[in-house]
Amino acid sequence: MLKSGDRSFQPFKGRTMAMIFAKPSMRTRVSFETGFFLLGGHAVYLGPDDIQMGKREETRDVARVLSGYNDIIMARVFAHQDILDLAAYASVPVINGLTDYNHPCQIMADALTIIEHIGHLEGTKVVYIGDGNNIVHSWLLLASIVPFHFVCACPRGFEPDEKTVEKARSAGISKIEITNDPKEAVKGADVVYSDVWASMGQKDEAEYRKQRFQGFQVDEALMEIAGPKAYFMHCLPAERGVEVTDGVIEAPNSIVFPQAENRMHAQNAIMLHLFGL
Amino acid sequence: MLKSGDRSFQPFKGRTMAMIFAKPSMRTRVSFETGFFLLGGHAVYLGPDDIQMGKREETRDVARVLSGYNDIIMARVFAHQDILDLAAYASVPVINGLTDYNHPCQIMADALTIIEHIGHLEGTKVVYIGDGNNIVHSWLLLASIVPFHFVCACPRGFEPDEKTVEKARSAGISKIEITNDPKEAVKGADVVYSDVWASMGQKDEAEYRKQRFQGFQVDEALMEIAGPKAYFMHCLPAERGVEVTDGVIEAPNSIVFPQAENRMHAQNAIMLHLFGL
Amino acid sequence: MLKSGDRSFQPFKGRTMAMIFAKPSMRTRVSFETGFFLLGGHAVYLGPDDIQMGKREETRDVARVLSGYNDIIMARVFAHQDILDLAAYASVPVINGLTDYNHPCQIMADALTIIEHIGHLEGTKVVYIGDGNNIVHSWLLLASIVPFHFVCACPRGFEPDEKTVEKARSAGISKIEITNDPKEAVKGADVVYSDVWASMGQKDEAEYRKQRFQGFQVDEALMEIAGPKAYFMHCLPAERGVEVTDGVIEAPNSIVFPQAENRMHAQNAIMLHLFGL
Repeated sequence: MLKSGDRSFQPFKGRTMAMIFAKPSMRTRVSFETGFFLLGGHAVYLGPDDIQMGKREETRDVARVLSGYNDIIMARVFAHQDILDLAAYASVPVINGLTDYNHPCQIMADALTIIEHIGHLEGTKVVYIGDGNNIVHSWLLLASIVPFHFVCACPRGFEPDEKTVEKARSAGISKIEITNDPKEAVKGADVVYSDVWASMGQKDEAEYRKQRFQGFQVDEALMEIAGPKAYFMHCLPAERGVEVTDGVIEAPNSIVFPQAENRMHAQNAIMLHLFGL
Repeated sequence: MLKSGDRSFQPFKGRTMAMIFAKPSMRTRVSFETGFFLLGGHAVYLGPDDIQMGKREETRDVARVLSGYNDIIMARVFAHQDILDLAAYASVPVINGLTDYNHPCQIMADALTIIEHIGHLEGTKVVYIGDGNNIVHSWLLLASIVPFHFVCACPRGFEPDEKTVEKARSAGISKIEITNDPKEAVKGADVVYSDVWASMGQKDEAEYRKQRFQGFQVDEALMEIAGPKAYFMHCLPAERGVEVTDGVIEAPNSIVFPQAENRMHAQNAIMLHLFGL
Repeated sequence: MLKSGDRSFQPFKGRTMAMIFAKPSMRTRVSFETGFFLLGGHAVYLGPDDIQMGKREETRDVARVLSGYNDIIMARVFAHQDILDLAAYASVPVINGLTDYNHPCQIMADALTIIEHIGHLEGTKVVYIGDGNNIVHSWLLLASIVPFHFVCACPRGFEPDEKTVEKARSAGISKIEITNDPKEAVKGADVVYSDVWASMGQKDEAEYRKQRFQGFQVDEALMEIAGPKAYFMHCLPAERGVEVTDGVIEAPNSIVFPQAENRMHAQNAIMLHLFGL
């Protein structure tokens, strides 16, 4: 861990980041703000009430104003188009901190975690169980670059975006499977990955989703089918007893907390790259 | 720009600022917090829920408590009296970050922007089109010190505070005009300046104001009357199609984004002055 | 004061603190964030909307995730059990920034203030007038370690927690008195201490409490009974005309503002201790 560790590596010294949160977050907030500080910089937190991007001020104006103050912008928004608009108008790098389409920082942290625990991502079998959401899209985009075996097991009607699946498949890099059978999916998995069934914008359909996602809970029985080498991952927050059991998330092969910590390290690596450092 | 630039000038090292926001803000927030950090200090953000100044705690107590923790206080409040009360009881400098009466940090940034683009403020013709609000009051107060030609063109009934107009006129430094004729006003302008018609506390009368402000939109026709040397300025956020057209704000002679960035530099200069640095 | 003072003592350099606020606060927020910065670190503010600890995410998960990012956690929560849960699951030190049971940081600041003004806490008579709340519990816990004379004068039915009183008494270190007679209580006091009658979670019973607390206002008459050597203390915010008069809080022997500032210094000392620095 970088915490309290090397205090002399300060590549972000004198640099500032604007963090736009259209929806609140603990992991994204703390990992970015802490990580940026540990490398010497200062992150400014802008919550839902501070900006109201697109309402009180047009996104293109927010992008240009913040580019005048800050060296980099990170935004966690609802509509993916917002991050594209920010990037189009900002004169500084813009980081996607989560949109309704994808979540690239999470997947970079996940890849780092898998490499730390298994030694390599290439050739592993990663099985995602649940909603074909933004996490899945980022897995698919990663699978179009790095060769591994990605399986998404979701209820019928909750498959990931077809274009993104097609993009990953046509890249010809990874083996991609989209299935509705979680038990078949997890066989031989190196990683079984879970996420909440109803994301923040979908809380009103939480009960409906609970019905539809019956059989997609990652429980001890499913992990037994996966086998003893399978790690459990989850991007958190988790709802125990819903998409995952308490036993699975608290088991020795659950690596959800190293995974969470790696958000910080992966994001710092992304920013070092964007700054050309 | 200071951004990523000189990292060795740290006059605010070890100093802290309390930032009180009775109303949210992007520009004021980011420019103060970023600027203070770039010169070595740390700004603490206190939003509407954190203090409830005058409600949960008397303003005089807030002033004295914060003076014990911080080296400087910046406050963005509704009632101008609040900033006067803070200043009366604080034992550290207090900066007016915006009140319902005036907006001195904005006008310092505006003056800096004019100097950067025209070479001097003295002798220029600055024409404000819109509501005779806090921005106008600060222009008038500046005009009582620095000689230039200030014109405020506003609808009948939306003139600036009479005492402030009188103060600026009786100073005998600048030429001051308050008019209801925007077309006549902008002739020969070096700067045409616009602001929203309904500020945050006036959103319920937004529709009424749109009626009353007909003819006061800064559009291409008005800028043509102003002439080719006229720059367009706006303190942002802007409502395109209301007080200004998209064409005007996006035109090459629009300097609204350098103007926004200058908030940070002007404020840093103000704080260096207040600290005697 | 440390402010603007010694800028070379940076024991918290490269360290970060997560600050969890289940309820807003000015003093706790600013004193922790400023103090941590003055010694070289960075504190991340997490407000009520950012975490929703126990709702959006289980407390044990919050504790473990934040332990991966930060070197220390400070939390201001409603239920005392929450701070115990945080401490049980976090792998970094957890500071109690206020719970419904006690407020240890405040009492450390109070002790420091008394030592600064009287020279010593040992042997002094500290008389608390008001509700037998979290402040009183922390006074009692301190009295079980350091020898002084602690009196809590409260209306019948508003006595402090019996177990905590018993704990302090059975420690045999200090003289402990719980009484319903404020006039008798303050005789010979070195410190008369007041707090609001209705804390944040009790605002709906504010009117009822005003009735019940008649006679427990610290006014000039009560301070005259206490005598000329008695200092007035209050943890703030204060409601003038309710639990204390304006005259008492503004009098020369009121030390409420040094007391507030000492939150910062006492807390920095606590953190230096927790870090073993």
